Amino acid sequence: MAALSLFLDVPLTREVDWLLDAYREDPSPDKVYLDHRGRSCWLAWVCPTVRQTLLQIANDPTLDHEYLPVLGFPEFTRAATELALGRESRAVIENRAGGVHTVGGTGAVRIGAEFLRRWYNTSSPNSLRCIFQDAGFTEIRPYHYWDTGRLAVAIEEFLEVLESAPDCSIVVLHAPEETGLTPKQWEEVARVMGRKRLFPFFDVPAQGLASGDLDRDAWALRHFVAQGFELFCAQSFSKTFGLYDERVGNLIVVARDNETLVGIRSQLQKQVTGTWATPASLGARVIAMVLNNPALLNKCLRMLAEKIMLIREKLKEKLRILGTPGCWEHLTAQSGTRSFTGLLPSQVAFLEKHKHIYLLGSGQVSVCSINSHNLDYVAQSINEAVSSTVGRAQGLSWAETE
Amino acid sequence: MAALSLFLDVPLTREVDWLLDAYREDPSPDKVYLDHRGRSCWLAWVCPTVRQTLLQIANDPTLDHEYLPVLGFPEFTRAATELALGRESRAVIENRAGGVHTVGGTGAVRIGAEFLRRWYNTSSPNSLRCIFQDAGFTEIRPYHYWDTGRLAVAIEEFLEVLESAPDCSIVVLHAPEETGLTPKQWEEVARVMGRKRLFPFFDVPAQGLASGDLDRDAWALRHFVAQGFELFCAQSFSKTFGLYDERVGNLIVVARDNETLVGIRSQLQKQVTGTWATPASLGARVIAMVLNNPALLNKCLRMLAEKIMLIREKLKEKLRILGTPGCWEHLTAQSGTRSFTGLLPSQVAFLEKHKHIYLLGSGQVSVCSINSHNLDYVAQSINEAVSSTVGRAQGLSWAETE
Repeated sequence: MAALSLFLDVPLTREVDWLLDAYREDPSPDKVYLDHRGRSCWLAWVCPTVRQTLLQIANDPTLDHEYLPVLGFPEFTRAATELALGRESRAVIENRAGGVHTVGGTGAVRIGAEFLRRWYNTSSPNSLRCIFQDAGFTEIRPYHYWDTGRLAVAIEEFLEVLESAPDCSIVVLHAPEETGLTPKQWEEVARVMGRKRLFPFFDVPAQGLASGDLDRDAWALRHFVAQGFELFCAQSFSKTFGLYDERVGNLIVVARDNETLVGIRSQLQKQVTGTWATPASLGARVIAMVLNNPALLNKCLRMLAEKIMLIREKLKEKLRILGTPGCWEHLTAQSGTRSFTGLLPSQVAFLEKHKHIYLLGSGQVSVCSINSHNLDYVAQSINEAVSSTVGRAQGLSWAETE
Repeated sequence: MAALSLFLDVPLTREVDWLLDAYREDPSPDKVYLDHRGRSCWLAWVCPTVRQTLLQIANDPTLDHEYLPVLGFPEFTRAATELALGRESRAVIENRAGGVHTVGGTGAVRIGAEFLRRWYNTSSPNSLRCIFQDAGFTEIRPYHYWDTGRLAVAIEEFLEVLESAPDCSIVVLHAPEETGLTPKQWEEVARVMGRKRLFPFFDVPAQGLASGDLDRDAWALRHFVAQGFELFCAQSFSKTFGLYDERVGNLIVVARDNETLVGIRSQLQKQVTGTWATPASLGARVIAMVLNNPALLNKCLRMLAEKIMLIREKLKEKLRILGTPGCWEHLTAQSGTRSFTGLLPSQVAFLEKHKHIYLLGSGQVSVCSINSHNLDYVAQSINEAVSSTVGRAQGLSWAETE
């Protein structure tokens, strides 16, 4: 055997999630991690109903643990697809919407991205960026829909991005229920996208957790379906069900007609066969059982949505009591698991350097990472960051007038 | 919106598993499916220990269902890697062997194949073929190690294939414990592969089920490691644990040294992040718990290996009682879940057309698909196929003298 490795040239890659890496390496006992990507924190709370269902299924002596079909557990994909599109959706009734049970939402994005690379004539789509890159897309453009200065939706800029995109580009619409766009604004987005023949790839990580209402959170997606768009939608249940480690996702395909859907699903089946063969089953069984019991489902979701809004209110109240410069109404005006704080990059850097609090440079935080143990510390730290880095008056100005 | 689908040109692919498709569409109540790929049949029996462990874990109120790390459940990958290589393996001790927790054995082959396409200088590997094709390999050559005429290992032909392969080719060594090669023959294979600098990609779907002995089944793999090869090994636990639907696999990487291993695993981590983000957890927790309890593990494996050998013996005895032409000793001379029956393509076709029994054209069957309900029917049908298609004397001649 040769003495040198065959893989001498393989470079060590940087940790894919450098923020999480910095957090993990920080020895401070006060450290807090406020990014939304991947980590679940207190939201990794499993609703008692889900836990009971899990036990019921694990206890079932008739469950044979046979492989699932390549495209997954049919009761799950059907229930999940109807949850997003609505049971009365014409795409559902006309048999031209179908799901592919995937390994988490990531698996849904990946298998969808690979399909589009192979079959979509022209091609465009953050951690999502790396999935599309891995799937072979080379031209990827980021865009923003949030004005960090005005602390509001940047609808004009968003529409401009769409207008200036090459015709037939793929547009990834991440967490549409959390963007804060109004139905009127979504209608405008759909009009521009239809005219420019842009392909919508929705990514719905937590339907129901923004408003506590499943239908309301699915408004934008359903509007696009109603307008006749063909589209993909990557759907995840990790946050809504707390079963982060069971990796259950669903790739929804809405096609022009059933014949097209059948062709697309056959290609996706081929891709899945060569990627993970068949998905894991237990998590999907638990979720399918709850999805098929709307009373249980709504109870779980309302509990979660209320927990999230309560954290938002508590944080706003703490900042008010501390006299933190600026207006913090946007914390409760927004909803869902993620929040733009309006913190400036210099303030984000202050929090990381002096307070061991880690969040994205854009000031976006995962509300679920804030809990009863770290709430006071986080609020106090934000107060110090805002007060010390820009001064009281300046803090007021960026938050209200810019 | 345009009236035509964006995906008009997407052709319907043939069912990836045409044999399974033919079986599913066959309305006969007598139909039997004897292929090994994917289907588990009676082997989807879950050992009571595994079921208890599953319940214990599902019942654990401290289990938080948080995401696993990208490379998976460390206790699982460590135990699984040591199971294959041996705890005393120099590669383990020198910290240059490591596992990547994958979504089933398929996921292990896929993520390994993609890595090799990106990082291995030159590039070779049945359902495995499609995984490598999907991963971007274009030049793939099939090979055989079984002489269907002589009903014996075709070692000379196998060595010739290796000798004539381009230097530095990748050689997929599927189910080494079931090929029937002796240690001496494996040593010869390793010598040729070392001289030709061929890269070994082992695929171990059921360690322990061939001989009932974990170490004996891992002999070939460990010999290659001991000879200093760098290699990949896709490892599956579906058959040994009966948890087919939890999709637990492990990609073992053995590198020249720890530094190289760290580089390779960092690249694999990047690939996993863009493919399924993190693997599912419950199945891996169950398997890790049993793997870390050797007494339990050996008990489970012995029970399974005995069940498999009993079916082989019963089938041979039935054929003897029926007076089926030919010698059937090879049924019990081989071991493991798959068996070359020595049936000719015309006999395989007879079984499918007249008996609703489906198996590969090579005459290979999954022993686990034969059970107490279909054993008599399968034996009677093989008897008819052999007797009617080639006649008694001819049947004898191909089985004994060719």
